[in-house]
Amino acid sequence: MLEDKDQSRTSLGELGEFGLIEHLTKNFAVRQDTTVLGVGDDAAILEFSKDQVVISTDLLVEGVHFDLSYVPLKHLGYKAVMVNLSDIYAMNAIASQVTVSIAVSNRFPLEALEDLYEGINAACKNYKVDLVGGDTTSSNVGLVISITAIGHAAKEDIVHRSGAKENDLLVVSGDLGAAYMGLQVLEREKAVFKANPNNQPDLEQYSYIVERQLKPEARKDVVELLKALEVVPTAMIDISDGLSSEVLHICKNSKVGCHVYEDKIPLDPQVINVCEEFTIDSTTIALSGGEDYELLFSITQKDYPKIKGNPNFTVIGHILPEGDGKHLITRANTTIPLISRGWNALEGS
Amino acid sequence: MLEDKDQSRTSLGELGEFGLIEHLTKNFAVRQDTTVLGVGDDAAILEFSKDQVVISTDLLVEGVHFDLSYVPLKHLGYKAVMVNLSDIYAMNAIASQVTVSIAVSNRFPLEALEDLYEGINAACKNYKVDLVGGDTTSSNVGLVISITAIGHAAKEDIVHRSGAKENDLLVVSGDLGAAYMGLQVLEREKAVFKANPNNQPDLEQYSYIVERQLKPEARKDVVELLKALEVVPTAMIDISDGLSSEVLHICKNSKVGCHVYEDKIPLDPQVINVCEEFTIDSTTIALSGGEDYELLFSITQKDYPKIKGNPNFTVIGHILPEGDGKHLITRANTTIPLISRGWNALEGS
Repeated sequence: MLEDKDQSRTSLGELGEFGLIEHLTKNFAVRQDTTVLGVGDDAAILEFSKDQVVISTDLLVEGVHFDLSYVPLKHLGYKAVMVNLSDIYAMNAIASQVTVSIAVSNRFPLEALEDLYEGINAACKNYKVDLVGGDTTSSNVGLVISITAIGHAAKEDIVHRSGAKENDLLVVSGDLGAAYMGLQVLEREKAVFKANPNNQPDLEQYSYIVERQLKPEARKDVVELLKALEVVPTAMIDISDGLSSEVLHICKNSKVGCHVYEDKIPLDPQVINVCEEFTIDSTTIALSGGEDYELLFSITQKDYPKIKGNPNFTVIGHILPEGDGKHLITRANTTIPLISRGWNALEGS
Repeated sequence: MLEDKDQSRTSLGELGEFGLIEHLTKNFAVRQDTTVLGVGDDAAILEFSKDQVVISTDLLVEGVHFDLSYVPLKHLGYKAVMVNLSDIYAMNAIASQVTVSIAVSNRFPLEALEDLYEGINAACKNYKVDLVGGDTTSSNVGLVISITAIGHAAKEDIVHRSGAKENDLLVVSGDLGAAYMGLQVLEREKAVFKANPNNQPDLEQYSYIVERQLKPEARKDVVELLKALEVVPTAMIDISDGLSSEVLHICKNSKVGCHVYEDKIPLDPQVINVCEEFTIDSTTIALSGGEDYELLFSITQKDYPKIKGNPNFTVIGHILPEGDGKHLITRANTTIPLISRGWNALEGS
């Protein structure tokens, strides 16, 4: 579908590197007053006055992180930005800029890259971040996307992974496991389609989980909500590799233990249904599924009244002394060690 | 040579993603007081007080930007950092941090990545920059390196491409064309080696140009020297795609024209000799060769006495009104238009 067989499409070679970058970024507006100079010089220039600056970077590789047979390029562009903004929000900071570099083979026509950048632009618009730089180069194979996200916040607002203290409560935003189950559905439909290309997939009943996989939203609103509620978490991390892995990161960096309660883990009914359909345990999916891009954070007990009953937040456990270990308390009230089986980019590849 | 056939080597799968990043970055020291927090959280935290922040990013792809059959991984790591720092120095700023992301196939043993990171670490040490983040992921094919460099400077010190004014002088640091000719020699030796693997290359007489190709140095010293001489260029750019291309960038962004004098273009004697050996015109190489990572800048005439006679600098031309066009004045005193035929990552690939 994406191969450059349609002769009416524009080949990348016709534009050259500078022409390509100019063409792809010409519709991007500058919205942040911290952006002094965006694309077009040796480097972008930013100005944050007294705020601290936070920077995070991610590399997405075709065939490893995404499969273009069912991921539309526009969604991919959007998601690639989300993945990075999520790390900035996990610092309790305001995301303000991104740089986007792509390596792309000539099998992609210009129109494919326009779709990708349309998604990137939509993400920039929705989240008010500026595209301030990047690099476009050829690749012998496939598509590689590298994004660096930049944000800022006052020093006292920035939240590390390392600040969780004994008796703090562990809280997650949203619900977990949907993105992973969305991926399972898409993979199944791909297999069905391969067997019978006339088979049109009906994804209606999977709409929530498929959208969570294809078009996740970073939780900027959670950072804003916490500010409005006057809650500064003691530690925070985004849930990209599954809840277990992230809980263990907070515990390791904060030198604490914890209890997580299985019956408290927030699941969407669609996730529960699809897990039954696939005969997979939904707790396992929430713990190890990955790509949820929700926020996991710890708060002091005195902040509990501020978030109590808020539909955006679920208290899933609490922090213990390091010596008590990190455990899941199951529905059957047994205590089992939390293990990171999260998605691992290098595992088995 | 790099394939993982030696069973005594360590496969990447054994370490997993987090273990790999921790292992590769454990020898990296933090040297900059602008680095508040480096590797190990969702994002790095930096603090620049009143300085403006400059950010640049580059993507290097195996088979496009480098050929591992003659580029040692340690040199590659070093060069990848240089390429990015060069952009920061081209803003007349101090480079302070880098993030490094790599996508790598399992054909690379751990020891190969250790070599790569040894080169990255050497660059960080020599240039006093901190590695503050990155991402390591698998790749179906080859090696991809994505680096983002961060720097800072007082607002009044930052130099854009757009500030060149009529009558300013055009100045370059160092000499040009060596990196490109080094590449030609390496490509020739590769062809010879393929034809006869017992043939040991003797690169002694090409040492300067081969080193310029394999281990370039970004001109941090030029930024420091300009500061010591109290010269703030009116425009500056680094020479990565050949002199022509960069002169044209400055002229376009500054809305000016220029004259560049062929007989003023600085060439190392080894470049002249090797150009004769390859029967290539040395001016063409200097104008279009690329990868020199020297700095091209414009200064006001009143600053000329400050750089006059300095062996680091060569005045190669001057700025004209835009309507006068951009021309090369040849040794034969003919005037020909400057054309960008620079290395283009998307050309012909």
